[in-house]
Amino acid sequence: MTTTAINTKQFMTSEQLLEHWQGHRNLTRRVIESFPEKELFEFSVGGMRPFAKLVVELISIGGPALKGIVEKNMEGYNEEGFNPTTKAELLNKWDEETEVINRYFGQISEERFQETFNLFGQYEFPVYQNILYFVDNEIHHRGQGYVYLRALGMEPPFFWERF
Amino acid sequence: MTTTAINTKQFMTSEQLLEHWQGHRNLTRRVIESFPEKELFEFSVGGMRPFAKLVVELISIGGPALKGIVEKNMEGYNEEGFNPTTKAELLNKWDEETEVINRYFGQISEERFQETFNLFGQYEFPVYQNILYFVDNEIHHRGQGYVYLRALGMEPPFFWERF
Repeated sequence: MTTTAINTKQFMTSEQLLEHWQGHRNLTRRVIESFPEKELFEFSVGGMRPFAKLVVELISIGGPALKGIVEKNMEGYNEEGFNPTTKAELLNKWDEETEVINRYFGQISEERFQETFNLFGQYEFPVYQNILYFVDNEIHHRGQGYVYLRALGMEPPFFWERF
Repeated sequence: MTTTAINTKQFMTSEQLLEHWQGHRNLTRRVIESFPEKELFEFSVGGMRPFAKLVVELISIGGPALKGIVEKNMEGYNEEGFNPTTKAELLNKWDEETEVINRYFGQISEERFQETFNLFGQYEFPVYQNILYFVDNEIHHRGQGYVYLRALGMEPPFFWERF
């Protein structure tokens, strides 16, 4: 039996979270690749946004949010600056953000994960919760992309394949 | 600057992960509640499983998996034992599992989260990765439930409301 008090037990290290997130990002990349070019930008179900728009949202959160956290900059959320029209453009930006995420994530200290930060001047939560939100939001929207692919008669990538 | 080596930085405590998961489970419960009775069991998009079947999968993983981890029992995954036919039955079981999850999760030590376990005799990963998988899989399938609701012309609960 460990004698560590329950509220101080570590669940995972920050490196493990980053690897977990980048594994999810690899899978999301494969889902982007799976879409036919036209349907990526035009197809949706139930009046929702096409998958490319959901991906632009993800791109506008991950890297910019981490940069905001590290620089303690509370500038508002903005997805207006990036308007891709091709799958290649979307994938290039996705890959650029992979590096941005690695660079900024590595600059967050253990103490900082527990500190409250007003992300985008709007989402005031402990930093670890903000980061979990980025990952969860990606899984949520990618799950919707899976339905779009199925509705198109296509087989999505395996959910458990990450690297 | 912290002097903690990067690979030993804590991202979050186990209590924080449990609270995070139960927050997601609250949201999933609200999504179950949102479905009309008939559509919960019959409606789907693109030949996928109806939302009730996805929820039976989630119920067959969370509690049983944690019990397996705590008792080091590698018995196979099984969702045959629970065949709900009403929303009320599904919600009752969901609430029962909330307690099962709390009980078993609290018995996992910090060291154990890092140990490899062959979950259900099939998924051999560190315990923390197995647990993240349960949460991610729930978000993934619930995101699909959101599309079903939208396709039914209904407004899903807010993704960010957890408690």
